[in-house]
Amino acid sequence: MNIRYVIHWLGKILLLEALFFLLPLTVSFLYKEDLLGSWFLCVLIVLVVGTLLTRVKPLSEAMYAREGLSLTALSWIFLSIFGALPFLLTGTIPSFTDAFFETVSGFTTTGASILQEVESLPHSILFWRSFTHFIGGMGVLVFALAIMPRVNRRSIHVLRAESPGPEVGKLVNRLGNTARILYKMYMALTVVQIVLLLAGGMPFFDSVLIAFGSAGTGGFGIKNTSMAYYNSPYLDMVVGTFIILFGVNFNMYYFLLMRETKLVYKNDELRVYLGIIVVATIAIALSIAPMYAQDWKAWLDSYFQVASIITTTGYTTADFNTWPAFARAMLLLLMFIGASAGSTGGGFKVSRVVILWKGGVEALRRSIQPNRVKPPLIGSKPIPDSLMKSVGLYLFVYLLIFVVAVLLLSLDDLDLITSFSAVAATFNNIGPGLGAVGPMENFGRLSPWAKHLLSLCMLLGRLEIFPILVLFVPQNWRRN
Amino acid sequence: MNIRYVIHWLGKILLLEALFFLLPLTVSFLYKEDLLGSWFLCVLIVLVVGTLLTRVKPLSEAMYAREGLSLTALSWIFLSIFGALPFLLTGTIPSFTDAFFETVSGFTTTGASILQEVESLPHSILFWRSFTHFIGGMGVLVFALAIMPRVNRRSIHVLRAESPGPEVGKLVNRLGNTARILYKMYMALTVVQIVLLLAGGMPFFDSVLIAFGSAGTGGFGIKNTSMAYYNSPYLDMVVGTFIILFGVNFNMYYFLLMRETKLVYKNDELRVYLGIIVVATIAIALSIAPMYAQDWKAWLDSYFQVASIITTTGYTTADFNTWPAFARAMLLLLMFIGASAGSTGGGFKVSRVVILWKGGVEALRRSIQPNRVKPPLIGSKPIPDSLMKSVGLYLFVYLLIFVVAVLLLSLDDLDLITSFSAVAATFNNIGPGLGAVGPMENFGRLSPWAKHLLSLCMLLGRLEIFPILVLFVPQNWRRN
Repeated sequence: MNIRYVIHWLGKILLLEALFFLLPLTVSFLYKEDLLGSWFLCVLIVLVVGTLLTRVKPLSEAMYAREGLSLTALSWIFLSIFGALPFLLTGTIPSFTDAFFETVSGFTTTGASILQEVESLPHSILFWRSFTHFIGGMGVLVFALAIMPRVNRRSIHVLRAESPGPEVGKLVNRLGNTARILYKMYMALTVVQIVLLLAGGMPFFDSVLIAFGSAGTGGFGIKNTSMAYYNSPYLDMVVGTFIILFGVNFNMYYFLLMRETKLVYKNDELRVYLGIIVVATIAIALSIAPMYAQDWKAWLDSYFQVASIITTTGYTTADFNTWPAFARAMLLLLMFIGASAGSTGGGFKVSRVVILWKGGVEALRRSIQPNRVKPPLIGSKPIPDSLMKSVGLYLFVYLLIFVVAVLLLSLDDLDLITSFSAVAATFNNIGPGLGAVGPMENFGRLSPWAKHLLSLCMLLGRLEIFPILVLFVPQNWRRN
Repeated sequence: MNIRYVIHWLGKILLLEALFFLLPLTVSFLYKEDLLGSWFLCVLIVLVVGTLLTRVKPLSEAMYAREGLSLTALSWIFLSIFGALPFLLTGTIPSFTDAFFETVSGFTTTGASILQEVESLPHSILFWRSFTHFIGGMGVLVFALAIMPRVNRRSIHVLRAESPGPEVGKLVNRLGNTARILYKMYMALTVVQIVLLLAGGMPFFDSVLIAFGSAGTGGFGIKNTSMAYYNSPYLDMVVGTFIILFGVNFNMYYFLLMRETKLVYKNDELRVYLGIIVVATIAIALSIAPMYAQDWKAWLDSYFQVASIITTTGYTTADFNTWPAFARAMLLLLMFIGASAGSTGGGFKVSRVVILWKGGVEALRRSIQPNRVKPPLIGSKPIPDSLMKSVGLYLFVYLLIFVVAVLLLSLDDLDLITSFSAVAATFNNIGPGLGAVGPMENFGRLSPWAKHLLSLCMLLGRLEIFPILVLFVPQNWRRN
């Protein structure tokens, strides 16, 4: 690996974080908080470390797959370590384990919190928490690509490592332009959501933060009861619908801008994604209706929770821990399916499910007609065997990580539902689980061991496993 | 499909079942039970129906994959329906749903029981229950191939559909001889186990039945407390070790007979299978040791339960429902891994795990070195992409069936651990689960809906999904 190159870029990413810190610093100033000193110290530390790292000059510009993967993984780890500084220096989260967990949860757009009480947090801290969702959603390296004047063609490795889904391509010929287009669409959708939230009477500060959490499909609440606080069907509808929109592959929005509506209409992943949402909403609404006095409230709660879980956001308007077994089992399933590839959502991704489903149907057909040669199609193109194989292997590796994490977490002797759903909720970047980490609970009471393990799960989930695993392969660290 | 051919053979399989009935009938006679009339009636009904079906003469001998799959699936369903007759006619299990569940559980070598009390059952019924394990273990169609004088070359489709594992081959050139060799080894091992059990002071009747349940990796207990009744470390060791032996690919024993010890020593699946047993036994023993007064008892209980669960047998010597979360999570994992391909055990199969593990490691290596071309090896042969792809797809279909079954079962509003482990225990052909279907409980209190659903799970698991699914494909039923 070209280690000097990676270190040099890690420095630049930290300088970017110093830039990010200026936003909550401004919020702190506007709200006349007593925290300006802490914020300046945060900026200073990150500036110094970042500058020192950028001093390491790469001997060559060689950037291949392993540099891309390692840089991506290390960037996210560094950003999370230094992103924990505001919590530590302001004293809002005094333990490093907790502050690191909260920051990883923010950047990975998980939204799992160790805080029992968030309403008393200073505005600048609440802003930083939600802003990490916004940055992490579309990806910090994609952001770096978007703002850099000259982008190395080989930076495609970084885009691949950071963007979710089985296949990552460029929208337009130039990588920098692709990144800029993605961020423009992302910001535009966020602004529209802010406006709609304001129209529903939500305060400006809340609107911005809730929109950040929606855009990144993160889910950090800014009220102790999450979205239930606002008690407004209109706001529930707006947030529920926008998280579904942020869970769509952003290529679809690009196609719409290019007036290629046919490509959107015919997209298999989009149709299955929306289909699952419709079916799950109906199934869960029917299952929970007997618990509700008003039918429309059951349907709204079902819609919101389904949207929140499948997009791996994690905002809640109801305590689904108390729902019937069928509804909970359905939500657990949605946790694993996850959102679309190329969206800000996590999980296994609908496109992978679609590819494997088509492969499974084909395998069944071939067991009846062994001489059948017609390959399964996605859109109108045949699915190559290599893609089918790699998606199948991804499923195995995904399950393996999941199982090992549950085993390691169960060393703490939590009940099985809690262990299982805590890993499901962090590895899929959702936030709340079931049992002792349910929507009305938090991760604060877990042991430091559990918190570090789940932090790792969040990073593995957000970066789709391989970039993080690569760090553990000795071969990766050898010089070129 | 050549429907007449399939019906004709279903008739022959039923005639075989009439032959099987003669054994418990003899037991009934020897123990001077009052049930001879019922047993004769069972034989008569099956003889009549079988004869009628064999009267349907096939217009051609054409037998392809779909005939093989359909015949296998339908044989198992017919055998289970008519195999329930003894329970019904003797009045020992008066409900058809329950009797069918118990018979499916027997033939599929699951060992899940709806009976709360087994010690009061007549000897002939206990014998029939355990004998279904013995027949189902190696496969009833393999048995048919073994005793038939002239075997169609195309019957390989039947062998494939009934034998577990990703790849099924013939041991010797002739299919009938392969089946005979398999059954000879199977019977020889069973006889050795009976002798060793007798040597430990177990009564003759018990020894035969416990050996049947071990050979098929079935697990029906003949005492209410399963193996714990005998309270003998020696017997626990014998049974624990023999079920591990029955969970080994029978090709290994053939290689040993042929003095090809190198092929056994170098077999990846065998090494991993034994490795998992060693690691799991140590891990669980350490986890449960604090609960035990004597250390050796913790180790023995760990060894026995690990052997019983990974081989999907289901005999128990301890109530693992009360074990720490880590030990239970470990057992849940073993439930899914299952035994070796080509053994009498169920589950996903160690060989599939090995193939996917090697594929996953290769994918990780290729993410660092995209130009790497060396394919992963199994033994000394490269794993073809087509095999990797089909095993990956099998994993997906396996999970899909599992998830759908859990969702459907959760409609009964059981707790999640019970729903989850009930499906895990039946689909993997193990027997006891956790929670309300734990080792000290039974399946009797579940609803008829749940019992039929779990019966289907057992059949899907034993036949590795596709033969059963094929029955639901309309295309399969079209005439050739």
